[in-house]
Amino acid sequence: MRYKAIVSYDGTNYLGYQSQKNRQGIQDAIEKAFRLMTQTTIYTTGAGRTDKGVHALGQVFHFDSDLDIDENTWLRVNDRLPLDIRILKVTKVKPDFHARHSSKSKIYKYVIAKQPSTPFSKNYEVYIKNLDIQPMVEALPQFLGTHDFKGFCQYVEGKPTIKTIYRADFKETKKHYVFTFHGNSFLKYMVRSIMGTLIQIGLGKKDISVIREILETQNRSLVGKTAESRGLFLVKIFY
Amino acid sequence: MRYKAIVSYDGTNYLGYQSQKNRQGIQDAIEKAFRLMTQTTIYTTGAGRTDKGVHALGQVFHFDSDLDIDENTWLRVNDRLPLDIRILKVTKVKPDFHARHSSKSKIYKYVIAKQPSTPFSKNYEVYIKNLDIQPMVEALPQFLGTHDFKGFCQYVEGKPTIKTIYRADFKETKKHYVFTFHGNSFLKYMVRSIMGTLIQIGLGKKDISVIREILETQNRSLVGKTAESRGLFLVKIFY
Repeated sequence: MRYKAIVSYDGTNYLGYQSQKNRQGIQDAIEKAFRLMTQTTIYTTGAGRTDKGVHALGQVFHFDSDLDIDENTWLRVNDRLPLDIRILKVTKVKPDFHARHSSKSKIYKYVIAKQPSTPFSKNYEVYIKNLDIQPMVEALPQFLGTHDFKGFCQYVEGKPTIKTIYRADFKETKKHYVFTFHGNSFLKYMVRSIMGTLIQIGLGKKDISVIREILETQNRSLVGKTAESRGLFLVKIFY
Repeated sequence: MRYKAIVSYDGTNYLGYQSQKNRQGIQDAIEKAFRLMTQTTIYTTGAGRTDKGVHALGQVFHFDSDLDIDENTWLRVNDRLPLDIRILKVTKVKPDFHARHSSKSKIYKYVIAKQPSTPFSKNYEVYIKNLDIQPMVEALPQFLGTHDFKGFCQYVEGKPTIKTIYRADFKETKKHYVFTFHGNSFLKYMVRSIMGTLIQIGLGKKDISVIREILETQNRSLVGKTAESRGLFLVKIFY
């Protein structure tokens, strides 16, 4: 039987989603919890990596098990997990469902604080002094559509870099500026490279036109410093 | 010159406010930051300890320095501090001001979550299954006034245990039940012992009358398990 699981986590104390040699990946913690719960080895396949310090509201993975455990009972794995990782939902899926290959699109958000972070908010936002948010918002529509994002990522030889962004939104809340990106898929460091460049624009260090230029030339040297991981959240994956 | 400082911290990653042999107290981090900033040794005197994992919105300490640094410039010490400790305010005070001896009263709050904690809220609240909040709220007024709190603390030989509670409030927010205690001073584990007992009442394991009984007999064996530190916040100290 194949299952799809949705998981939320605070990435602060992990080296990223993916399993690590030193077992400090979020996936390691999840597989350990399954082992403690079922006394069997359960391998999980994630929809994708998130980097060290990146959070998730709705990361997805799949796993196979023939144990007679129903969807709700699988949630008891939470009793074996550290509190900074919570499995929100487990559902039976068809045997050809694949967390990574079946995914249609993903939403990420990046959270910028309006005020200096407090000790309680510091892991979930980024505060930047003297940031002018207006040009950042104006720059946003340039990302929409299908582009070669080779400039806006850590390029891996052979991996296709042409991606489609369906939505690039800005929202202001009481305490935050929130940038949201909905795209068919994302490259390594892509959202953080986009945000790093937008931040440079907000600091007056780059002109809005730099985005079009990077999208056209794929010149990574024009991209702003990769924005810090603690402001980034994987929000949702669509299937 | 003597200064009063107000500090907020996330206690999750520290062994408590007070300086520790292994230097993992919040006070250690503060004194180290002052050393890095001023290249001098500055000793600080806190208004009181907070335990491992307890948070503060407004802890207070005082320190002496003859360096020519004004109140606002002292705040630059934040550049040398980890982000989970923030000095909010530094003010010049009279030489006889003492963070502990001059304090008139303190406010603590204890935060109970209405829903199971998320990975992002887990360090700042406590969730307890099947808790009936109503009898806990009804029990609250019994703490008001002057009582011998010897039962509701970790007793230290020779330390006076008669304390006055001015205010014991309950507030419900969208996500939380918040209990607030304003008293002239607090003993070790006092709020957490009070909350632990209220939680037993909320779970139907003790009757409301147990509070009066403990206050009259100082029988610590009747007190509920000390509530977890992560729900406790030192809110404010009055002078």
